Amino acid sequence: MAYESFRAIVPAGGAGRRLWPVSRQVNPKFLHDFTGSGSSLLQVTVDRLNTMADEVVVVSGQTYAQVVQEHVPACAVLAEPLPRDSMPAIALATAVLMIRYPREDLVVGSFAADHHITNREAFEHAVGAAVELARRDEVVTLGIAPTHPATAYGYIHPGEEHHTEAGVVAHRVEGFEEKPDAQTAATYVSQGYVWNAGMYVARSHVLFDHLRRLHPDLAEGVWEVAQAWDSPRRREVAERIWPTLPSVSIDHALAEPLAPENQVMVVPADLGWSDIGDWDAIGSILSGQDPRAPVVLGQSSRLTTVDAPGAVVAPSKQVVVVGIEGAVVIETDDAILVTTRQQAQQVKAATEKLAEQGLDHLL
Amino acid sequence: MAYESFRAIVPAGGAGRRLWPVSRQVNPKFLHDFTGSGSSLLQVTVDRLNTMADEVVVVSGQTYAQVVQEHVPACAVLAEPLPRDSMPAIALATAVLMIRYPREDLVVGSFAADHHITNREAFEHAVGAAVELARRDEVVTLGIAPTHPATAYGYIHPGEEHHTEAGVVAHRVEGFEEKPDAQTAATYVSQGYVWNAGMYVARSHVLFDHLRRLHPDLAEGVWEVAQAWDSPRRREVAERIWPTLPSVSIDHALAEPLAPENQVMVVPADLGWSDIGDWDAIGSILSGQDPRAPVVLGQSSRLTTVDAPGAVVAPSKQVVVVGIEGAVVIETDDAILVTTRQQAQQVKAATEKLAEQGLDHLL
Repeated sequence: MAYESFRAIVPAGGAGRRLWPVSRQVNPKFLHDFTGSGSSLLQVTVDRLNTMADEVVVVSGQTYAQVVQEHVPACAVLAEPLPRDSMPAIALATAVLMIRYPREDLVVGSFAADHHITNREAFEHAVGAAVELARRDEVVTLGIAPTHPATAYGYIHPGEEHHTEAGVVAHRVEGFEEKPDAQTAATYVSQGYVWNAGMYVARSHVLFDHLRRLHPDLAEGVWEVAQAWDSPRRREVAERIWPTLPSVSIDHALAEPLAPENQVMVVPADLGWSDIGDWDAIGSILSGQDPRAPVVLGQSSRLTTVDAPGAVVAPSKQVVVVGIEGAVVIETDDAILVTTRQQAQQVKAATEKLAEQGLDHLL
Repeated sequence: MAYESFRAIVPAGGAGRRLWPVSRQVNPKFLHDFTGSGSSLLQVTVDRLNTMADEVVVVSGQTYAQVVQEHVPACAVLAEPLPRDSMPAIALATAVLMIRYPREDLVVGSFAADHHITNREAFEHAVGAAVELARRDEVVTLGIAPTHPATAYGYIHPGEEHHTEAGVVAHRVEGFEEKPDAQTAATYVSQGYVWNAGMYVARSHVLFDHLRRLHPDLAEGVWEVAQAWDSPRRREVAERIWPTLPSVSIDHALAEPLAPENQVMVVPADLGWSDIGDWDAIGSILSGQDPRAPVVLGQSSRLTTVDAPGAVVAPSKQVVVVGIEGAVVIETDDAILVTTRQQAQQVKAATEKLAEQGLDHLL
């Protein structure tokens, strides 16, 4: 189900530090097969988009651009000189596409490289509806139907209802909310708010017009880099301008200021979505029917448990877990992480502590 | 402070499975330096006894008799053909000593190879008092003043008080109690019961006379093996008789039946004692002033913790512990144990599970 002149952008930049020690700076989350699919998260993401988009463009860091290209040989890979969060990356890909295909009225969609979606049909319907609304000059986001009052995600407040031509229900966005505390999260869920998964769809011209108006310096800098991209001057221009651009997400740069202007719509969707945010999420994705069964990434005979239901373990040596519910034990060549699924969000803090200890080679 | 004609016996047989994966069948607990002393537990035990005893005899399994001899080159090492618990081992050493020194009126004392004692002066006083009482034909045990209502130890019920010549208080033993539940343990502690650490002192003739009366077959078998010990027939006789002997501890074989006969005395002592029974005990021994400080067996820079007070970690790779109080992470070349100090007693069950999985090479 290909949507005409629809091109997908995949910013592949996040290190995924909560999935340390498997996810590393030089071998980040999206290059790993955390879901047991046989492909890296990036490959699965690109495969999912390829059925709908004329092209998938991946924006990646210079350090791993080459290995990214090896993962997705059919994609255009744009290598940022420096990480600058999602807005510059998405804007660059949009501008390069606009310059490469000047006669097309492009709709671009941006999707994270490292999320998990089980309900592919629902995803295609939602993207189809988003493309249709984008053609009417809306900036469109996909909202995830919450399965629980999560505190790890931002929320989208859906307002007035619209029906697309394809019969999909969309909403005008009243506002974007930051990650809430537990009580606020419960209120949001009861009021029909949806999770913000950072998926945006818009006409390239609409996106760039908003950017020029709200962040003129950013828009101008990105455009200059994009104009030099397919020329011998790419490196010189990119290295001069890119470091001067602000690090800002598309949520902060565009979605949040556009919502009060009634310029954003949300398509709620039940995608079986996970951002694979920590080892607990991986446990949930891989645990199957029995949530108390252990999850082994690798050879299951390498795990022995006593009174340790719901363990998530990546062993290379024999790992024995005794008396810890939801234990997480992740072993790599040079490090061992021990935590619980409940505490798994704190792994990021541990990586910061490793940096303080001068152990950057482990990051 | 040497006691005349006093010889010490150290049965060194226990595998120390609760200290897996460091303690192994072929390299058991007593051969390791778990207390950071620079010597193995066996060496420290022998050093402690050498100041008091004319000789220290170690009874060990055949598989590690050679390495035991290397640890304690000055000791006589008797190698059992098969493990048969403490009574046959102590009886064999006693009989061999009686035959080797027929003109001496020996007092023998039996002490575990793998216990920790910080108050050496109190230990020497208590052993001195026990030797004095043994010369009066008592079977004497040292009782540990409890520091908490432990459920991991047997208890001794002290009765009528006696004062030794050296001014040490001893008691007639009313009875020996098995490991109690928590409530019973609290009652025992409030009633002045002491812990049974399995340390026994007696005249060799008294010990053997009791054994002949209570377990004639055992006494006769051991005596036959002992008579052949220092002859070319040692191996033939030992391999024929030893397997026929029952596996029984000195507690069950002698101390428990002798208590109702008023034949046992206890010398209570505050030794700073630990049986180093599990990884929690090692944490307590090594933690120093601050019980929330992490304990690292090895290079302390190899541990990084976030919200994990009281962790006990033996790392070779970098170990990162997040959000588990009292976490225990023990890494060896071929295995990783993950538990908590509270659950550390269950490690033995884990080793049984490994055996069920056919992973005997890890035991």
